[in-house]
Amino acid sequence: MPATDAIHGAVKTALIKDGWTITDDPFTIKYEDAMLYADLAAERALAATKVERRIVVEIKSFLGPSLYHDWEQAIGQYEVYRRLLQVTEPDRELFLAIASPVFHDFFQRKSVRLVVELAQINLVVIRLDTQEVEQWLPKPTTAN
Amino acid sequence: MPATDAIHGAVKTALIKDGWTITDDPFTIKYEDAMLYADLAAERALAATKVERRIVVEIKSFLGPSLYHDWEQAIGQYEVYRRLLQVTEPDRELFLAIASPVFHDFFQRKSVRLVVELAQINLVVIRLDTQEVEQWLPKPTTAN
Repeated sequence: MPATDAIHGAVKTALIKDGWTITDDPFTIKYEDAMLYADLAAERALAATKVERRIVVEIKSFLGPSLYHDWEQAIGQYEVYRRLLQVTEPDRELFLAIASPVFHDFFQRKSVRLVVELAQINLVVIRLDTQEVEQWLPKPTTAN
Repeated sequence: MPATDAIHGAVKTALIKDGWTITDDPFTIKYEDAMLYADLAAERALAATKVERRIVVEIKSFLGPSLYHDWEQAIGQYEVYRRLLQVTEPDRELFLAIASPVFHDFFQRKSVRLVVELAQINLVVIRLDTQEVEQWLPKPTTAN
């Protein structure tokens, strides 16, 4: 099992409060020679249609000495997971979970916003104090 | 200036032998709040049309303790640079330069090949012994 990120517990609690069921902790991505571990997988039923939406969540604390280094590492991990999931689990949406202060500071930099937009990185922003989802960017289909 | 990668000199020599002129070492990517440094920029004239092709090259040695960590870092850096270049220098092609042994071992793993293909990562493979370009993947327009 990989090292647990500092905000792991808060993200898990927040997702549960948001109506999600945690199905995997961690979630194994297996493709040919590769066995990788994303932090969480969760699912949520859409009541009206009984369709289940499924997500994979990778948690990043951005507590390292260089925000840009953490950022590049997060983007790289996101890209690798996304491409492997595209083939192995095409119906799962991948989200990068970050804490609210990181979102309201570092993720507001114009360069970071540009990359998030152009690279189509899905974000879920977590309030650590209340352990709640602050926002989904973009909203997953069932997070209404 | 960023730390020079171990194979920096070999890549530079190989590009020059391949007909490229090194224009920047390092190459500054500036966008709003961000100032980032890619390893090299080079250009080459296409004789028939006098069109100049311009590339940016980020060099990765893959000498760290974990190939997958280096890989995620390389992909993340590539993605960040690509997205910023898309806005600031849309006519430049971005290449990840790697040494021949890394290409023939790690980069032949099915998971790595899949990500390279789906994420559309351009590679230039360098022979360290002869300091020559072994191959471009895909070939840039002028590398005929």
